[in-house]
Amino acid sequence: MTVPTGLLFLVPNTLDLGATPPPPLDWSIPRGVIEQASRLTHWIAENAKTTRAFLKRVDAIAPLCQPLQSLSIVELPRPAKGSSATPSTDAASKLLGPALQGHDMGLISEAGLPGVADPGATVVEAAHRSGIRVVSLAGPSAIVMALAASGLQGQSFAFVGYLPVEAAARAQKIRELEALSRRQDQTQLMIETPYRNQALFGALLEHLASGTRLSVSCGLTLPEGFSRTDSIEGWRRKVTALPSDIPAVFGLQAQRG
Amino acid sequence: MTVPTGLLFLVPNTLDLGATPPPPLDWSIPRGVIEQASRLTHWIAENAKTTRAFLKRVDAIAPLCQPLQSLSIVELPRPAKGSSATPSTDAASKLLGPALQGHDMGLISEAGLPGVADPGATVVEAAHRSGIRVVSLAGPSAIVMALAASGLQGQSFAFVGYLPVEAAARAQKIRELEALSRRQDQTQLMIETPYRNQALFGALLEHLASGTRLSVSCGLTLPEGFSRTDSIEGWRRKVTALPSDIPAVFGLQAQRG
Repeated sequence: MTVPTGLLFLVPNTLDLGATPPPPLDWSIPRGVIEQASRLTHWIAENAKTTRAFLKRVDAIAPLCQPLQSLSIVELPRPAKGSSATPSTDAASKLLGPALQGHDMGLISEAGLPGVADPGATVVEAAHRSGIRVVSLAGPSAIVMALAASGLQGQSFAFVGYLPVEAAARAQKIRELEALSRRQDQTQLMIETPYRNQALFGALLEHLASGTRLSVSCGLTLPEGFSRTDSIEGWRRKVTALPSDIPAVFGLQAQRG
Repeated sequence: MTVPTGLLFLVPNTLDLGATPPPPLDWSIPRGVIEQASRLTHWIAENAKTTRAFLKRVDAIAPLCQPLQSLSIVELPRPAKGSSATPSTDAASKLLGPALQGHDMGLISEAGLPGVADPGATVVEAAHRSGIRVVSLAGPSAIVMALAASGLQGQSFAFVGYLPVEAAARAQKIRELEALSRRQDQTQLMIETPYRNQALFGALLEHLASGTRLSVSCGLTLPEGFSRTDSIEGWRRKVTALPSDIPAVFGLQAQRG
C-alpha cells in the first residue's frame, strides 16, 4: 500500500534576523504564506532555534495547527549560512522521510528564500530525485531587493556569494568581477558577514576603477535600512561607516569599455 | 524655500499577470506592502493599465487613500518588459518631479520587483543621483523563486535575461552558458516570452550535455504552476509540453569538469 507523497514547501523567512524589536512579520511575508506555514507539521531548517522564533511570529497571526513543541523540526547537517559546503544527497534524502510518508514539509532558511545563498539546495535536489513536488512560496530575497534598490543593470546580474577574506585574493577577485561586469554588462552582487562589512567596502573602494558604480544595501526591511549607489569616485569623497551588525549586499557595475 | 524630497518606494507586483481569476493578492504580496501601496498618490509604472489592476486589488484589502482615477500614474517611456533598451537618465529624472516636490512615489513593474529584468533601473539610478531615498519593499521575484525551487547551485548564480531567438546564435549562447556554469560552478538562469517556451526548451535539450541539470519553473504562485529539475538525459526520456501562455524561468547547471 502506498500513500501519495507530501509536498515540499520552500518557506521564505524574514530578513530581520536578530533585530529587536523585529518589524511586523507581515511587512515582509505574505499572509497566504504565513497561513501555509501555520499548517505544516514537519520542518527542515537551516537553524531550529530561529525557525521556532519564526513560527512563534506565525502563530501570532495564523494559529499553528499543533503546539510548537510538538512540531518536528530537523536541522540541515551543517551550521553557518554562506559556506559553500553542502550536505550530501544521502543525508538530504533522509530528511525527506516524512514527505515520502505523505506529510507536507517546510524547508526554511535563517533569512530569505531557502536554497538561495544557503545550503538548502541539496534538500530540494533530493526532493526532485524522489519525485516529491517542490512548491516555492513568495517572499523576500535580500539579493534581488538590493539589486532593485541599486539602479544598476537589472537585465543581467550575477550573485557570487562571499569574496575571499585574504587581502590579495580578495583584491584579485574584485578586479575579476569588475572585468566580468564590463565585458558582459552584468551587475555583480556579493555579501559579507556583517562584522566584515567595512573591510569589504574599503577593499572595493581601493581596487575598483573610479567610474565603476557601487551599491550598498544594509538592513533591508529594517527601519534603519538604507540603499545607496554612487561611483567609486563619489564614494571616495565622503566618509561612510557601514554598520557591523546588520547584513549588507554589495553590487558593482563597471563602465562599458 | 525647499521641501524635503519624497521617497521612491519600489513596489513589488504579483507574478500572476493575466491569470483568471488571479490568486489572492496577499498570497504573494505582504500586508505591510499592500498598505504602503494604498498610501501612494504618485506612480511610475512599466504599464499603467496593469498598475490600475494592481491598485484595484490593493483597494479591496487596504482602501486607497484617494480614488484610483485621481492617482497620478505615468509610464516609463518604453513598452515591453525584457528588452535591454532603457529610458534615458534625463527622461527618468523628469518622472521623479513629484518626489523632488515632496511626494512619496511608487515604482512598479508588470510582474515581480521593479528594476529586476525590466527597464525600471534607470529611474532608480536617477533617484540616487537626485538624492531621493530609495526603499525596496519585500515581494516575489520569479528569478530567485525559480532558483530556490530548482535545487541547483544557489550560492553562485547568474540571470542572463533572454537568449537570442535565431537558432544558431541561441545554440552558441547555450553552449557558452554551459561552459561558464562548469567553469564557475554557477547556475545560469534565463527567461523567455511564453509563446517561445517550447522552442527554448527544445533548444536546451538539443544543445546541452546529457549530464547537465536543467530546471523549469512555470507559473510560479499559480495553482497550475510547477517546478521540475532533471538531467538533460532524464528530460530527453520523457515528452514534456510546456504551456505557451504562462511565464517560465529556466536554469541550468553543468557537471563539474
